[in-house]
Amino acid sequence: MVGRSPKPKTDGTSLSRSEFLLHTSIVFAASVVLVNTFHGDGEPLAANVALALIGFSLCHSMVRWLGPTFIKAGFKGCDLSKPHRPEIPECMGAVCAAVYLLVLIVFIPFPFYKDIVAATSGGGNRDVVYQVEHVQQGRLLHRFPHSKLASYLSAIISLQTTALLGIGDDLFDIRWRHKWWIPGLAAIPILVVYFVDFGVTSVVLPIPLQPYLGELLDLGPLYYVYMACVAMFCPQSINMLAGINGIEVAQSLVISFLLVLNDALYLLTPYPHPATDSHLFSLYLLLPWIGVSVALLLHNRYPARVFVGDTYCYFSGMVFATVGILGHFSKTLGLLLVPQLANAAYSAPQLFGLVPCPRHRLPRFNPRTGLMEPSVTTWPPGRQPRPLVAVALRLLARLHLLRISEDEDGNITEASNMTLLNLWLVWRGPLREDRLALEVTILQLVVGLFGLFARHCLALLIFKEDNWALASATEVSS
Amino acid sequence: MVGRSPKPKTDGTSLSRSEFLLHTSIVFAASVVLVNTFHGDGEPLAANVALALIGFSLCHSMVRWLGPTFIKAGFKGCDLSKPHRPEIPECMGAVCAAVYLLVLIVFIPFPFYKDIVAATSGGGNRDVVYQVEHVQQGRLLHRFPHSKLASYLSAIISLQTTALLGIGDDLFDIRWRHKWWIPGLAAIPILVVYFVDFGVTSVVLPIPLQPYLGELLDLGPLYYVYMACVAMFCPQSINMLAGINGIEVAQSLVISFLLVLNDALYLLTPYPHPATDSHLFSLYLLLPWIGVSVALLLHNRYPARVFVGDTYCYFSGMVFATVGILGHFSKTLGLLLVPQLANAAYSAPQLFGLVPCPRHRLPRFNPRTGLMEPSVTTWPPGRQPRPLVAVALRLLARLHLLRISEDEDGNITEASNMTLLNLWLVWRGPLREDRLALEVTILQLVVGLFGLFARHCLALLIFKEDNWALASATEVSS
Repeated sequence: MVGRSPKPKTDGTSLSRSEFLLHTSIVFAASVVLVNTFHGDGEPLAANVALALIGFSLCHSMVRWLGPTFIKAGFKGCDLSKPHRPEIPECMGAVCAAVYLLVLIVFIPFPFYKDIVAATSGGGNRDVVYQVEHVQQGRLLHRFPHSKLASYLSAIISLQTTALLGIGDDLFDIRWRHKWWIPGLAAIPILVVYFVDFGVTSVVLPIPLQPYLGELLDLGPLYYVYMACVAMFCPQSINMLAGINGIEVAQSLVISFLLVLNDALYLLTPYPHPATDSHLFSLYLLLPWIGVSVALLLHNRYPARVFVGDTYCYFSGMVFATVGILGHFSKTLGLLLVPQLANAAYSAPQLFGLVPCPRHRLPRFNPRTGLMEPSVTTWPPGRQPRPLVAVALRLLARLHLLRISEDEDGNITEASNMTLLNLWLVWRGPLREDRLALEVTILQLVVGLFGLFARHCLALLIFKEDNWALASATEVSS
Repeated sequence: MVGRSPKPKTDGTSLSRSEFLLHTSIVFAASVVLVNTFHGDGEPLAANVALALIGFSLCHSMVRWLGPTFIKAGFKGCDLSKPHRPEIPECMGAVCAAVYLLVLIVFIPFPFYKDIVAATSGGGNRDVVYQVEHVQQGRLLHRFPHSKLASYLSAIISLQTTALLGIGDDLFDIRWRHKWWIPGLAAIPILVVYFVDFGVTSVVLPIPLQPYLGELLDLGPLYYVYMACVAMFCPQSINMLAGINGIEVAQSLVISFLLVLNDALYLLTPYPHPATDSHLFSLYLLLPWIGVSVALLLHNRYPARVFVGDTYCYFSGMVFATVGILGHFSKTLGLLLVPQLANAAYSAPQLFGLVPCPRHRLPRFNPRTGLMEPSVTTWPPGRQPRPLVAVALRLLARLHLLRISEDEDGNITEASNMTLLNLWLVWRGPLREDRLALEVTILQLVVGLFGLFARHCLALLIFKEDNWALASATEVSS
């Protein structure tokens, strides 16, 4: 229904008639579902889907409504990849994050509804098994799954801290070397909960390595360092693969969908899987995130009417890190972040200063053709790269992993900036902005699907068991 | 040491030499204490004090360093109560809140250190009683006090949500009718935890009422509405008693000190008190808040070099609401907020539109005398207040609770704005800004001390028991 008319009445800040009807029906239907969950055992998954839909409607409406407010408050930016460089609201990911956090907070009671009813009614008409010594003053206090509640709350804290970091960065342009550490601090709550709840620091080794190191390798405290690194890497990695309309939200949506697919593989096993709770938890966090992200994408897709800002990228990365760590599948998460890992590795020479790094490395818009081209970093004739760097650059160019220009004397005058988006443009020639975003998103999807396939099918070649087998392997991190 | 020289080298953004030495020694000493707590049972209170000191140093330094950054980002305001109306950084409460949240997050493992050691080492050399069936794979998972952890985490979430609200308000000037509700939503996590952990919804009744209503009155769901109202009232009430240099931070510090005093009364009883854990929890939250608030006051006291912004007021109110609710002494908290309650009640006619309400009601600075005078709201001769309102205004003026001016025809031309600060100026004549802040702070202290005295001594006249008696009364909310 959205955007059916060629020129919908949505240029301003109010919803069009069809959008209003759509959102009203969504919120109404979702509210009915939400109220109905109280008749059964709480049905947390149904409640979660309903809240995700409400989050979608709320986020879609609020981004529309708040545009002028954001511009007035100074959150605005020019879209450099359009002929007239329009000025549009920036940092709308903050709205997305705020709605998402609100949804998560409202959702808190639902997964525990069954336990709450059991605790308060004495469990008479519920199928909760309890022992008489647990009844204290008519309440089953000891039966309440406080550890699950603590997991859930720690996830919210880590995400909120990240939102505060993102907003701070959008406001103040925090220096790179400072902001790198903050997601590590934001991860403390989930690491503490991981420590007291699971404390599993062993990883399963591939069969070829088992004769030398045993079946399980206990990483000990290093495992926590590893998890903190996951929490620091995910937000930055989403933030690095950015710069064209829609790419930040689209990649996050692809990763979310793949994580949901992975969860579904565990939840749809023919027998109750030991990791069911972890993957339910992951769904509770991911579905509302998909809801608000789709709403944001409708505003941020080409041609963008809002920018998402650093807040969205950090927050999105932290959502993935949180479900990966607390759901015990941080290695699987790594398989879904291969394009981000590749982008980070490819960017390393510029990040570490071996090659000059301009402030922005997003692809260059060619106003004559209306297409995107690789942006470049230049060397004046007098200041050439060091010999070893020059050799490496020429080698990369020979391998079609870089585009360089040389003058008649054999000096390197310019090289394409080292990001995945520029590399894709080196390979696939000039592309329109939306086409570039679409192709990179499809790349993310294909790589991720192959990663999941590898995880669940090929992994049996080098690991002993998988979730479809009667697994004890899932007791350790996958 | 701070400000010893008449013109210290602190006009810029760097610390003076003496400040640098002070902060370095504080951080060093606190770190030593922090590391030493690991040798014993964690000593959470010592660790908390050490972290509060580090928070003080960090907050004091960061407010200094970030001043120009805030001004550049548009967070600045003119001090209307100074002759030259200097422009100074605004919203520095956000720094205070961020440092505080960081301290709380770093503190998470400390109160649970003993349990973590017991859980991981098997408790061999610790005095933790455990049963053999609780040992699972060498870890005492079931003994871990998850409910305490959940309490602590829910408090952090509520505070973070409030920080986000405050920053949003400082950025966008959220409408009053919207922002009123948000602390209520922010309180959901602590209410859920209250529900599953305690669920006590009865209040002890005064002896004169007991023949009619019984000893305990069960408020049921109304008790949750009451707690949500506490959470909504506290932030607004601090925000309403504001407008002159230092008053927001000073009143918060007085309330914090009184709450700490109240906690000490429970912790220093000659026998272990049943409410010990609640009051320890309260201390864990209050001491770091005192640390960062003192640091902010050093910058915000007359003549202010920074403003605190709405963030500080909301956040401070939420700290009090959180400890009051989760520590089960929301009624005692009310006794410490009497000046805020009085201010809100006195402001009601303006808030509800019976009397015109200008955008700002802070006292007026008289540039000729350099003193503060009551600010006024005016009626042009054609637009007089309604007859009933006029009668009430004249009555208030007769009772010395308002200052009004009338013209020769008996029309009311102006009346002082209805805030505690203006009323104090009506009573005590023109005062210099720092004197006014000091007097109102002392008022807060005296009223609060009397409140605590009433709570712990006079209460025995109308309630049966108190914390110094062998109390079962403390099992319900005090």
